[in-house]
Amino acid sequence: MTTYWCERALAGDGDLIEGLVVETTGTHITSTRPASIAPEGCVQLVGLTVPGFANTHSHAFHRALRGRTQREEGGSFWTWRDAMYDVAERLDPESCYALASATYREMALAGITAVGEFHYLHHGVRGEPYDDPNVMGRAVVRAARDAGLRIALLDTCYLSSGFGVAPQGAQLRFTDGDAAGWAARVAELDDHTDPAVVIGSAIHSVRAVGRDDLSAVAAVRPGAPLHLHLSEQVAENRACIAQYGCTPTRLLTEAGVLDERTTAVHATHLADDDVRLLGDAGSYVSFCPTTERDLADGVGSARALVEAGATLTLGTDSHAVIDMSEEMRAVELDARLVSQRRGHWQSADLLAAATVSGQQSLGFADAGRIAPDHWADLVTFDLESPRTAGTGGGAEAVVFAASAADITSVVASGILLERDPQVVGRLLRDAIVPLMEGR
Amino acid sequence: MTTYWCERALAGDGDLIEGLVVETTGTHITSTRPASIAPEGCVQLVGLTVPGFANTHSHAFHRALRGRTQREEGGSFWTWRDAMYDVAERLDPESCYALASATYREMALAGITAVGEFHYLHHGVRGEPYDDPNVMGRAVVRAARDAGLRIALLDTCYLSSGFGVAPQGAQLRFTDGDAAGWAARVAELDDHTDPAVVIGSAIHSVRAVGRDDLSAVAAVRPGAPLHLHLSEQVAENRACIAQYGCTPTRLLTEAGVLDERTTAVHATHLADDDVRLLGDAGSYVSFCPTTERDLADGVGSARALVEAGATLTLGTDSHAVIDMSEEMRAVELDARLVSQRRGHWQSADLLAAATVSGQQSLGFADAGRIAPDHWADLVTFDLESPRTAGTGGGAEAVVFAASAADITSVVASGILLERDPQVVGRLLRDAIVPLMEGR
Repeated sequence: MTTYWCERALAGDGDLIEGLVVETTGTHITSTRPASIAPEGCVQLVGLTVPGFANTHSHAFHRALRGRTQREEGGSFWTWRDAMYDVAERLDPESCYALASATYREMALAGITAVGEFHYLHHGVRGEPYDDPNVMGRAVVRAARDAGLRIALLDTCYLSSGFGVAPQGAQLRFTDGDAAGWAARVAELDDHTDPAVVIGSAIHSVRAVGRDDLSAVAAVRPGAPLHLHLSEQVAENRACIAQYGCTPTRLLTEAGVLDERTTAVHATHLADDDVRLLGDAGSYVSFCPTTERDLADGVGSARALVEAGATLTLGTDSHAVIDMSEEMRAVELDARLVSQRRGHWQSADLLAAATVSGQQSLGFADAGRIAPDHWADLVTFDLESPRTAGTGGGAEAVVFAASAADITSVVASGILLERDPQVVGRLLRDAIVPLMEGR
Repeated sequence: MTTYWCERALAGDGDLIEGLVVETTGTHITSTRPASIAPEGCVQLVGLTVPGFANTHSHAFHRALRGRTQREEGGSFWTWRDAMYDVAERLDPESCYALASATYREMALAGITAVGEFHYLHHGVRGEPYDDPNVMGRAVVRAARDAGLRIALLDTCYLSSGFGVAPQGAQLRFTDGDAAGWAARVAELDDHTDPAVVIGSAIHSVRAVGRDDLSAVAAVRPGAPLHLHLSEQVAENRACIAQYGCTPTRLLTEAGVLDERTTAVHATHLADDDVRLLGDAGSYVSFCPTTERDLADGVGSARALVEAGATLTLGTDSHAVIDMSEEMRAVELDARLVSQRRGHWQSADLLAAATVSGQQSLGFADAGRIAPDHWADLVTFDLESPRTAGTGGGAEAVVFAASAADITSVVASGILLERDPQVVGRLLRDAIVPLMEGR
């Protein structure tokens, strides 16, 4: 049993608490109580403590591209994708583990306690299965757990390069041939026993899984999280309409894919009708604002989606930045840029998106609040750093003033994580430099 | 004489240098030479060293608002301005010094070696002059110098609340009654002798200085920097057209205000003709992307302005964030959001905007490069932090991956600044909390 005392806390119900004792046993919180003075023998968390962040959309290996794709004149999402495929072609189980492990350690420093890994790099370089056909997925899971994170492995079905075009190049590594092949491989992952690991599924996109396979793929893991890329690019919408005569959201709705366990990632370019369908389905959306900026996707209508009935969560996706404060404020700030109005979101609602809603979308229903019977995640921000000093110190400080660099302590699944940014920097360097420069 | 060795440097000509010796005498660089190994007795700067950043648009006292203006439902630039005026009404020379001093120390930590303070808080709370009518401006200058920064005090002429409406409330502190009153007060600032201080001038906006006064105000300090707020809000454009039948840019052009020493701040909402006028004038523009996001201003056309002949510089303005990496990348990323295209800017060009171009716009022509006879400013980024590790380590790392938290060392005007984020945090807290919560 470990007892923590939070000088100041946002436990998840919106109230700012001055002094909170949190008792934990193993991975979970057993009790909480207000206390203005720290009890003897407790671990003191000075600053503002919030629940653990959930990063609902990650491609861990994209971290290798940070600071390496900005050189070209011009370019688009699609030219960026070529650079990303170039990395995808070179990873093996060992380098995949090293890169994911370092990336997840960067996430842990940034207060992320659970990650949704949208994992599609399944097979060998010409598409041949490894001896264990899940060796890559298992490497990713092990990397997350070794870094102290819980993980939802969103094992991704990818069958075509675009509306029936056969996979090619790096895409050969992504495909299991058909939906049955994908389902058979994923079933083998059920041997895991760790409650900090959720095996979910993902439909890469309506480009990669055809209409006739959507229902079958969605039916494979009923009740588990199901994620999918949705309408990140206008070109995808156009091609879907050309192929099927309807938007991706409509297509997914008619296939019965959208419901309360589904998370639609990006959801950037939606028609009003699409927004209504996602809202009516009670689905989650995963906005990834720093990646959506980086990839020139555009600004989605998070506010409209939530008003329609969807639930907002946040992801760092390509890891151009790993900083949940930056993701939270970007939802509001990007909405301001396109609307020329302020005040679309309350800070507390953005914090809920980054914590409790995200945890739930990953299948960790008992996480994202500092409350009894919840996973023991405690993320503490320094309120007297050059960035946060003088801000008033509530949710607004975490959302609008802080950065990941202001996090001083992270408890994840009951473990007070070791923090050594220098070590994490070296792990990142050692994983990335040989991969990107060693050829 | 002090000798520095930069492990890696971007000296200002675009080339990445592996190993650079920089010799300084007093405030300036006397020589530079490549050297792969550090000479004995030098100060070693490990990481990537760039020239000092110039923050071309600052209202130091706005730092008190960080994390305190996001609570309202709805709101606009104009409701934000009410909150800002509320602070402006409560400052005196002592609290102004304390707040500016702490804010400038935050800037120094962030690698800013020169600041342009757009200073309009001149007089007592009912508009009465202080015994020294420049006591507030002098407090700001002293604060910058005590923090180690050079400063261009852009003493601001503010005569009307909006196209002829008399100043009211906090605005009483801003006005000198008429242009001659402003000029007479500013002339008294010529007693300064510090080469690290430039006394420039500013026209608050076409709202605050009428057409008939523009030329007179611009003529007061010929050759010195002249800054002005321009078309930050659509409402300003509309009101200007209603009053004068032309855009603010056209009005300023016809008054002869725009030339090579002028910096137009924001320049967000411009007609094509306005862009051409600013380009033809060879003026600077100061984009303040993190503030323009915060205030829901919109996204200006930096690329079009530069192609027309203007020079881009960057400012942190309201200090919602003080991080020049964030400002640099926001120019590109916000352009991507509205265009859905990548690659508007090369990293080296954004770095030039934040360094040499900015320094020049503030009147420090011999700054912003690591070169002989230039101000000795050296800003060093850690290339193995969790944010920067594995990025390749050139300009792209500083612009797209780093944050101010990755800066490990700052030499400003020949002085290796002491760095203690905790001290700066306490100074900020002690300056802001009594002001915002102590009433």
